[in-house]
Amino acid sequence: MNAEIIAVGSELLTPFRHDTNSLFLTSQLNELGVEVSFKTVVGDRMADLVGAARTALARVGIVIFMGGLGPTEDDLTREAVAETLGRGLERNQEFVEWLRARFADRGWQMPENNVRQADIIAGAEMLPNTRGSAPGQWVQADIGGAQRTIILLPGPPGELRSVFQEQCLDRLRLLLPPLHIASRELKIAMIGESMADKRAAPIYKKRTDVETTILAGTPGEVQLHLRARADSMEEAQNRVDSLAAALEDEFQDALFSSQGESLEQIVGYYLQMRGATLSVAESCTGGMLAERITSVPGSSRYFLGGAVVYDNSLKTKLAGVPPLILAEHGAVSRPVATALAEGIRERTKTTLGAGITGIAGPDGGTKEKPVGLVILALADGVKTEVLERKFPGDRERVRQWATQQALDMVRRKLI
Amino acid sequence: MNAEIIAVGSELLTPFRHDTNSLFLTSQLNELGVEVSFKTVVGDRMADLVGAARTALARVGIVIFMGGLGPTEDDLTREAVAETLGRGLERNQEFVEWLRARFADRGWQMPENNVRQADIIAGAEMLPNTRGSAPGQWVQADIGGAQRTIILLPGPPGELRSVFQEQCLDRLRLLLPPLHIASRELKIAMIGESMADKRAAPIYKKRTDVETTILAGTPGEVQLHLRARADSMEEAQNRVDSLAAALEDEFQDALFSSQGESLEQIVGYYLQMRGATLSVAESCTGGMLAERITSVPGSSRYFLGGAVVYDNSLKTKLAGVPPLILAEHGAVSRPVATALAEGIRERTKTTLGAGITGIAGPDGGTKEKPVGLVILALADGVKTEVLERKFPGDRERVRQWATQQALDMVRRKLI
Repeated sequence: MNAEIIAVGSELLTPFRHDTNSLFLTSQLNELGVEVSFKTVVGDRMADLVGAARTALARVGIVIFMGGLGPTEDDLTREAVAETLGRGLERNQEFVEWLRARFADRGWQMPENNVRQADIIAGAEMLPNTRGSAPGQWVQADIGGAQRTIILLPGPPGELRSVFQEQCLDRLRLLLPPLHIASRELKIAMIGESMADKRAAPIYKKRTDVETTILAGTPGEVQLHLRARADSMEEAQNRVDSLAAALEDEFQDALFSSQGESLEQIVGYYLQMRGATLSVAESCTGGMLAERITSVPGSSRYFLGGAVVYDNSLKTKLAGVPPLILAEHGAVSRPVATALAEGIRERTKTTLGAGITGIAGPDGGTKEKPVGLVILALADGVKTEVLERKFPGDRERVRQWATQQALDMVRRKLI
Repeated sequence: MNAEIIAVGSELLTPFRHDTNSLFLTSQLNELGVEVSFKTVVGDRMADLVGAARTALARVGIVIFMGGLGPTEDDLTREAVAETLGRGLERNQEFVEWLRARFADRGWQMPENNVRQADIIAGAEMLPNTRGSAPGQWVQADIGGAQRTIILLPGPPGELRSVFQEQCLDRLRLLLPPLHIASRELKIAMIGESMADKRAAPIYKKRTDVETTILAGTPGEVQLHLRARADSMEEAQNRVDSLAAALEDEFQDALFSSQGESLEQIVGYYLQMRGATLSVAESCTGGMLAERITSVPGSSRYFLGGAVVYDNSLKTKLAGVPPLILAEHGAVSRPVATALAEGIRERTKTTLGAGITGIAGPDGGTKEKPVGLVILALADGVKTEVLERKFPGDRERVRQWATQQALDMVRRKLI
């Protein structure tokens, strides 16, 4: 069974905004064994909407409209679908009263426009919306002898998700052949996408019973999405797990996540497991490493904090880098990276201290120290490991690569 | 003149990836006075591609395909458009030789598949691609008496941009009536989207000669995009500028940007203009404020750095917060925010010092100090300003709101 997702709204045809709801719906549909064959974006114009509806009904079994169910004159999805199907709209008086009561509860009078939200396509089921005032609609239709399912969902992401999950999932399951789908997401650190694919392809291409998608994530991260269908959940899971095991063998400890966790989450798990703590002293990444680490809820259990030592004076004041080392080797040097890691570890009394210095660009590069050069150090009180890297891309990407590398150093230290 | 943008590629119909190229093309087309009426995503299947091409040619004047021009069997855009138009493909032998030479230069033998990239639709112009091996194509066709322009562009964003800008812009200008379009982007800080719209709407709704789009940006930022068309550039610019002036009057100093600059850029301008420097001490934002400030190239001229004082011990060690104050008032308190701002300013010898403490969640909230509570301070050596806020949303959004508020405090101090 194939589906088309139609996002409705003129704002989605501007340079400023684009549909992201369809990613959620695609994921949900795929889990039911439904493939998305087309996605369409159409503005708030009656003729365009009817045209898009006709085209979709001619080519797929399930058509999902997102948006255009509000109370304004621009909200035309109900009318357009009714016209396409040659049906009328019936006002649900019970729902009109509920709407009025909802407004009255807040001490407001309902604008008359809002009754349009109670207009239901003849023969459709109303799908209650527990998060907003626009209900969804579920319509079955016969289009030239073919059965079609048409679903109207509200556009705001929270409402769309809840109406789909609470009202549509069970209805779709009844409609579709039973299917068991298992999935896994593996992540690999610090190997380029093409190199990762070169190593992974001979393994996953042999396995036609598992669908594999390889994707570049944040710089320094490659994701492998595995998905298998089978007649039983156990069999589907077995297929995915056996391919995952083969990929884990190939990538060994470059593979840091086998259930979709982020690198900062994994670093957090390891630090907690080892009862260890971490502090950081960052120059070119300017706080991005600390920000990534603290994006994980509960990170205060293992991350104490650190210093953003953008100016050289702060490298000395906050991380104790001796001025002589700075003068002799320059800020972007192995001795300074080492002193940052050791200095911040000592001042904060953590198990591990990380230091980063480099040239994020676009200016400040020289022939010896080009833009993209980053030197990273990790101190544990016994020895300090130092890595020198030349990262590609613009300022933003160099900083992302550098924080990914730093997190990966911490992870490798703890495994 | 209306356009449809068709993104080609089965990977764009997975839950993992979606088309973003169309935002760039939409912006370029709008500048030429062309509206985008539909966007379609279609997979690498011949029948689906031909169907999408037929539908598009029946409803708009300009159809742009993105992707599906590579050398693999999955790359079917050339074939599908040729079939839809009832034309053949002609292999450009000169281009085949160029391709072979390109491979030979790198010491490789060209895989035979690659000659498919030299297949040009009969009657089409080849659009050279200076960044990759897949050329674009430009086709004029008569569809049932209507003139249609069909453009085939390579999918990788860099190649798409360069082929469009170098090869298509001038061709489109020749095709379209001359138009002058001026645009401006205004940004407002720390006013919610609905409140901003309530204040802006009475002003921009009177001005039917300027198209206005209001959008929520990062939390704490609302954007107003203005665009006007006229017979001369001067007139178009006047229309946009006079509406911008009226909006500036309404929002006064809440309006921080009138040419699209980010808040961190604006803060940088002001700091440089005043010859001032800044340092920060962050608790709940965990480095995000420093990261935002240092995302601007050249920020080392005014940003010295700071401390990420996640753990209480670091609030004392790195920012000099007296342990007694921490014990008496708790980490999330006005005295601690004040001490963070004053302490980091003193240690780093900057003009201004900013301090942030709060509860980003999801855990750690109490009835008195709920999740979302953030206290911010800004010290200048004379007096220290303190703000207490309760921000909405999840951990990520609370942290974004807090950094936006801190940047806005610095900006307001300097204007």
